[in-house]
Amino acid sequence: HSRLPHYATHQVGVAGAVLDVHTGKVLVVQDRNKTRNAWKFPGGLSEPGEDIGNTAVREVFEETGIKSEFKSLLSIRQQHRHPGAFGKSDMYIICRMEPSSFKISLCQQECLRCEWMDLAELAKTSDTTPITSSIARLLLYGYREGFDKIDLTMREFPSVYTGLFYKLYHRELPENYRNMTG
Amino acid sequence: HSRLPHYATHQVGVAGAVLDVHTGKVLVVQDRNKTRNAWKFPGGLSEPGEDIGNTAVREVFEETGIKSEFKSLLSIRQQHRHPGAFGKSDMYIICRMEPSSFKISLCQQECLRCEWMDLAELAKTSDTTPITSSIARLLLYGYREGFDKIDLTMREFPSVYTGLFYKLYHRELPENYRNMTG
Repeated sequence: HSRLPHYATHQVGVAGAVLDVHTGKVLVVQDRNKTRNAWKFPGGLSEPGEDIGNTAVREVFEETGIKSEFKSLLSIRQQHRHPGAFGKSDMYIICRMEPSSFKISLCQQECLRCEWMDLAELAKTSDTTPITSSIARLLLYGYREGFDKIDLTMREFPSVYTGLFYKLYHRELPENYRNMTG
Repeated sequence: HSRLPHYATHQVGVAGAVLDVHTGKVLVVQDRNKTRNAWKFPGGLSEPGEDIGNTAVREVFEETGIKSEFKSLLSIRQQHRHPGAFGKSDMYIICRMEPSSFKISLCQQECLRCEWMDLAELAKTSDTTPITSSIARLLLYGYREGFDKIDLTMREFPSVYTGLFYKLYHRELPENYRNMTG
């Protein structure tokens, strides 16, 4: 076991799966710089010191002009030797978001297309990436049978070291387990 | 939106909650270099290119001599300005593990104590950290009512870029959603 200091090994990317629960439509984009016309959730890299949910809100807004609110964390992907990551590893997180505005204003530099797509259609189309397809199916499952089936919810804890708060994401715990005491 | 290259911003720490389902006991350690006598799950920082589950297996073994197998991902914590992280951010992941050996062989350099503790006792004790206590309660919930209630399971996907596989962690998806096709 190495006792030497460790340095940062990962970049963190965050995407927002913004679902309008009233229409069942989800916000999807196509990147300008990719060859395949694959629908994806809008997202991008975390800035230093930025919380996961804030990255999702910022990136969704920058790419699509849609305002949204963080609801839960849905998935984590770890990938090594990602070509965009300069030999570092990549942690890619997808969040469930709720929109608070609906009029798309596309970032032309990054995106070729952007639309509100029927979630059931995204779950079935082949014009997407494997990970987007998987998470679309997961989101559809949650939309139909309850988001509690798919969500990792967030709780804040005070940090003894920094005086700041940190955020912990895991499955919701029933009341009787949460309030367990000695 | 910045178009400049991004560099690694996070270190990734992984701990293993190793539960012996036959006895209901979980493997806990006390660090040598911390002031409070707080029971924690064994763990440490990921090496470059190392998968989350492999870090958990390696760190559990190095600290305690216990061999274990990765079962699922339980929680993610993001923390900024962590004092051990040299100004970078820290992603700390706890995995559910199953032991395949049981005789503790303590790493004296890092650990003061190590034992198999009753999971219900860990969930109630004040001699622990808030995050360990939370995850002990979550694990107890899963142990009593089914691990499917708490697990993020892992699936592998081929990466089009690297020719390697990447790992995606999310809630288990029912068969009928998984096999959905156009």
